[in-house]
Amino acid sequence: MKKIAILGTGMVGNTIGTKLIQLGHQVMMGSRTADNEKANLWVSQNGGNAGHGTFEDAVKFAEVIFNCTKGEKTIEALKLVDASYFAGKTIVDVSNPLDFSKGMPPTLIPELCNTNSLGEEIQNLLPNAHVVKSLNIVNCEVMVDAGKCGASATMFMAGNDEAAKKDVQELLRDFNWTDIIDLGSIIHARSLEMMLPIWLSTYLATKNGYIGFKIIR
Amino acid sequence: MKKIAILGTGMVGNTIGTKLIQLGHQVMMGSRTADNEKANLWVSQNGGNAGHGTFEDAVKFAEVIFNCTKGEKTIEALKLVDASYFAGKTIVDVSNPLDFSKGMPPTLIPELCNTNSLGEEIQNLLPNAHVVKSLNIVNCEVMVDAGKCGASATMFMAGNDEAAKKDVQELLRDFNWTDIIDLGSIIHARSLEMMLPIWLSTYLATKNGYIGFKIIR
Repeated sequence: MKKIAILGTGMVGNTIGTKLIQLGHQVMMGSRTADNEKANLWVSQNGGNAGHGTFEDAVKFAEVIFNCTKGEKTIEALKLVDASYFAGKTIVDVSNPLDFSKGMPPTLIPELCNTNSLGEEIQNLLPNAHVVKSLNIVNCEVMVDAGKCGASATMFMAGNDEAAKKDVQELLRDFNWTDIIDLGSIIHARSLEMMLPIWLSTYLATKNGYIGFKIIR
Repeated sequence: MKKIAILGTGMVGNTIGTKLIQLGHQVMMGSRTADNEKANLWVSQNGGNAGHGTFEDAVKFAEVIFNCTKGEKTIEALKLVDASYFAGKTIVDVSNPLDFSKGMPPTLIPELCNTNSLGEEIQNLLPNAHVVKSLNIVNCEVMVDAGKCGASATMFMAGNDEAAKKDVQELLRDFNWTDIIDLGSIIHARSLEMMLPIWLSTYLATKNGYIGFKIIR
C-alpha cells in the first residue's frame, strides 16, 4: 500500500485514481483549489482511501505522484507547489504536450518536441524529483488495464532514477502490463511523446481507441 | 513485372533493389552520375534485369519509384530530375528526415517534423506524382522481409492516391507484410516519420535492430 497523489481531475486522473484505490492504495486527488467539484465527486465514489486537496496538499501527502494534468498546463500546475515537497519522490508523467491550437488532429507543442519533451521539462523544473515517463502512449482505460487492448502490448518507461523505475514497473505490472521496456534516461521521453501522432493517425484510420503498440522482436 | 526505379545507392537502395529483382521486376538504380561505382557493382551482382543511370534516367524508365536517398538530401536529389517525368507515377518514400548535426541518436530535421514531413515536402515538390509514405519505420532488411523481425508486425502507408496505395500494398505483401494499415492522406507521413525516435530508443535499449511495431487491437 502506497500513498499516491493524482494531479488533475479529468478522465485520466479519475481512471488512474480509481484503479489505484481498487488496488488498495491511499490516493489523494490534487487540483487548483481544495473545493473542486469533480474531485469531491470522485472522493464520494471511492471510499475512505480516497481524498482530495490542492496540488500542494496532494504532493505533501504522497510518496508517488501521477501527473495527469493536461500537457499544455502541466508546468504551470507544478509551479503551484513548493518544489521542496517533490524532493526524493517519484513522478509518473503520463501526460502529452498536445497542441490543439492548429486544429484536429492535434500536433505537439513545438518547443516540447523532437529536441525536448514535457518529461524533460518537468525533470528540469524539479531536479530533486525522479520523473518517469510512461503510459502516455495509450488511452487511460488501457493505461490501467493492458488487457483492454486485447493482448499483451509493450509499455515503455524512461527516467533517470533506477529505484523510481523499479517502483513504476511494479505499478505497471499491477496494471497488467507484462512486456515492459526500460528505454533509459528521461531524454527518451521525447520518443514516447512523439508516438502520439501515430496513435492518433491509427485511431483515426481504425476508429479503435483501444490500441496498444507491441514491439515485435 | 513492373519497371521500378531505386533512387539512392546506399544500403537501403541496394537491399530493396535486390529484393525487387528477386521478385522478377526490372529495376534501374539512379544516382547523381551515370558512372556511380556502387551502382555498377550492384548491377553486376543482379543480372540482366538490373540497370543503372542518373536519377533522371531511372525516373524516366520507371512506373514506380522508390526514394531511398538520405532524408537530408532527398529534395536536392529529386530536383535534379525534370518534374514532368514523375507525372502520374508512384513514389514510395521510405526515407527519414534525420538530423545528425546534433549528435547521436539523431533527431528529426525541425522544419520537417510535427507540423510538416518529408513525405509532404516531396508531394508538394511533385504535385503530379503519387507519393506513398511507407516502410520507413524498420531497417531495410525488415522492410523487404517482415519475417526478419520474427513475426507479423504492422506496416502503415499514407498517401493521397488510392490506386498508388493499392500498388504499394501489393508490393508490401510481396515483402511479407500481412498486417497493413492505410492511414489516409500524405499528412500522416508526419506520424510515420515521428516513429523514428521510438525505433532508435528501443534499438538502443534492446540492442536489437530487427524490430517491428504491431498495433494490438
